[in-house]
Amino acid sequence: MQNFDYMTPTRLIFGEGVIAKLTEVLKPLGNKVLLTYGGGSIKKMGLYDKVMELLKDFEVVELSGIQPNPKYDPSVLDGVRLCKENQVDVILAVGGGSVLDCSKAIAAGAKYDGDPWDLITYKVPTTAALPIVDIMTLAATGSEYDAGGVISRTETNDKVGYVSPYLFPVASFLDPTYTFSVSKKQTAAGCADAMNHTMEQYFAADTTLLNDGICEANLRSLMENTKAILKNPEDYRARAEFMLDCTYGCNGILALGNSGSGWPCHGMEHALSAYYDITHGEGLAIITPRWMKHILNDKTVDRFVKYGVNVFGIDKNQDKYEIANQAIEATYKFFESIGIPMNLQAVGIDESRIDEMAHHVAENEGLENAYAPLKEEDIAAIFRASL
Amino acid sequence: MQNFDYMTPTRLIFGEGVIAKLTEVLKPLGNKVLLTYGGGSIKKMGLYDKVMELLKDFEVVELSGIQPNPKYDPSVLDGVRLCKENQVDVILAVGGGSVLDCSKAIAAGAKYDGDPWDLITYKVPTTAALPIVDIMTLAATGSEYDAGGVISRTETNDKVGYVSPYLFPVASFLDPTYTFSVSKKQTAAGCADAMNHTMEQYFAADTTLLNDGICEANLRSLMENTKAILKNPEDYRARAEFMLDCTYGCNGILALGNSGSGWPCHGMEHALSAYYDITHGEGLAIITPRWMKHILNDKTVDRFVKYGVNVFGIDKNQDKYEIANQAIEATYKFFESIGIPMNLQAVGIDESRIDEMAHHVAENEGLENAYAPLKEEDIAAIFRASL
Repeated sequence: MQNFDYMTPTRLIFGEGVIAKLTEVLKPLGNKVLLTYGGGSIKKMGLYDKVMELLKDFEVVELSGIQPNPKYDPSVLDGVRLCKENQVDVILAVGGGSVLDCSKAIAAGAKYDGDPWDLITYKVPTTAALPIVDIMTLAATGSEYDAGGVISRTETNDKVGYVSPYLFPVASFLDPTYTFSVSKKQTAAGCADAMNHTMEQYFAADTTLLNDGICEANLRSLMENTKAILKNPEDYRARAEFMLDCTYGCNGILALGNSGSGWPCHGMEHALSAYYDITHGEGLAIITPRWMKHILNDKTVDRFVKYGVNVFGIDKNQDKYEIANQAIEATYKFFESIGIPMNLQAVGIDESRIDEMAHHVAENEGLENAYAPLKEEDIAAIFRASL
Repeated sequence: MQNFDYMTPTRLIFGEGVIAKLTEVLKPLGNKVLLTYGGGSIKKMGLYDKVMELLKDFEVVELSGIQPNPKYDPSVLDGVRLCKENQVDVILAVGGGSVLDCSKAIAAGAKYDGDPWDLITYKVPTTAALPIVDIMTLAATGSEYDAGGVISRTETNDKVGYVSPYLFPVASFLDPTYTFSVSKKQTAAGCADAMNHTMEQYFAADTTLLNDGICEANLRSLMENTKAILKNPEDYRARAEFMLDCTYGCNGILALGNSGSGWPCHGMEHALSAYYDITHGEGLAIITPRWMKHILNDKTVDRFVKYGVNVFGIDKNQDKYEIANQAIEATYKFFESIGIPMNLQAVGIDESRIDEMAHHVAENEGLENAYAPLKEEDIAAIFRASL
């Protein structure tokens, strides 16, 4: 077991109607609020009006139009400028992981005199950030309970993860009813994202019995609740369990004490999203079973056996490789069953830039140190198998 | 699923040698330290000297002799007095859950002008506390990662739980090697304590798939690692996994979103410890299977089936009650196998005060609202079955 230094100080305020506590949470943090959101779905669902009504005694500055795979330019830069011009005290992010990730970069950038890209790329250490509160309308990334975000820079095809303890939200409002209107496509992509977060921590060396049990339970719960949601998008219990499952994804609690996996599927998917701006969860779902097939060997097979038996209930009285291959097939079939297009061509990616992307990943993601080490040719092979 | 408002801001600093970070953690909290500890085992193991060496630039006041089932008088009262007389900035608790629980009550009492019992019994709300840092030498109670403690008052046979968000430790140092010298008796009692914490959250209405999976994994891990420790007390990996399992016990993370159980075994055991000062974990182990037998009925049987199949691997293709009874028997046998005396008489408790204790529990613990409601006669029956 590895040493660790772990903390997640975020307050989770969970359940229908919890937004009633919003002003009580915001008040001690200041009076000038930067309200960040995306493309307007929060207006359609009436949440924007509800939030503005609750904020009537605050001064509110708005940054809207934050896109999926949130962009450094213009969103982060605009947000930082707005914070500085208006001396914003606190950021209120309303939306999904993209809005929140973008808001985290803004929160740090607002407290820094130079180019925020310095912080995002760790050229300069982050030493402060504005406090962040969020209201989630999409369950997927776990950003509401972690200290990181992912920011894309279009002109350089960069999509980079940025983590600092200053970026934990002070409080996250998680009302499952706000996710009732999330489409089947986005629900499935969120499921794939959260499942892959869990797998990235499960397929690691020296996991503990508790690590394994939590990850397996999270995977089972994500699958079962996704199926229930796709049948009835307003199934409160399923939306609620799914939302909380996603929340556990990224703050490290699934992997306390193990030595980590290197997050290979995320490393590879970030290139796909950066080059083609595809839906992150779909990219992960497409890559995951191909990555699994590629890394299955005598060193990893026991992990796949455990995964197959405990997550999919595969009969354990079989040959190890038989179980492992069934587990990989079950993973593929599950993603397919929830409606995810299961190859790259179906999301608009062809062979043309695969080698370029593989090179970019090999240069930037350090996957030669992953649980199952990946060189540039491995990455290219996984991309090709995913076509 | 129930609404919840959850936060655990404590920093967990885990692993061999992490005490090297002690001064860095303490320094921002102040210069005057109240060092609290128990009966001197930390001196025997050399930890006292190590801590004093690290504290050489701090002003240190000491409170030693804190007992298991820590006492309001003298320990809490002495600690509060020492803090006030010396204007202590921060409390450093070195020991097990009893030392830490006592230190939490001291931390709150030090910031209150009246009798600290007012706070412990919620007659007056807690609005502040000194910061607390701990170095654990015993894995059991989970106090290192929660906001509560249990304090005993001998003259009134009271043993009461006291919880306030101000009581979260700022940081908990968890070095598994400090638990190498914990006796087999105390290891077994710690296991029973942590297992019961988990069960008190598992045997509840409307649990989620994730709740169940985490609890089941924690129970399996506690059992497997306890067996390994009893074979080899210096098995680092087993001590480490066991220590972290215990840490998850009491901060609510095992039960997020369910409606709770009412913690019936703790309610009953607190009377046993208060009247007879027995080892808390042993009391819990003795009561647990008798409580299970008593509450097994058509409303609860499915829970016992899940427990039996997923925790003990009992064959699921049997009659429900057959599985449930096997699960209860397996629980008893496990506690017996790790050396716990499995009846009350073996720990010095006879029939004479059972009715008095049952009355005390019924009056004070609210168990008529538990997952399986218990009236005074139920409590007395469970005590009698435990004799």
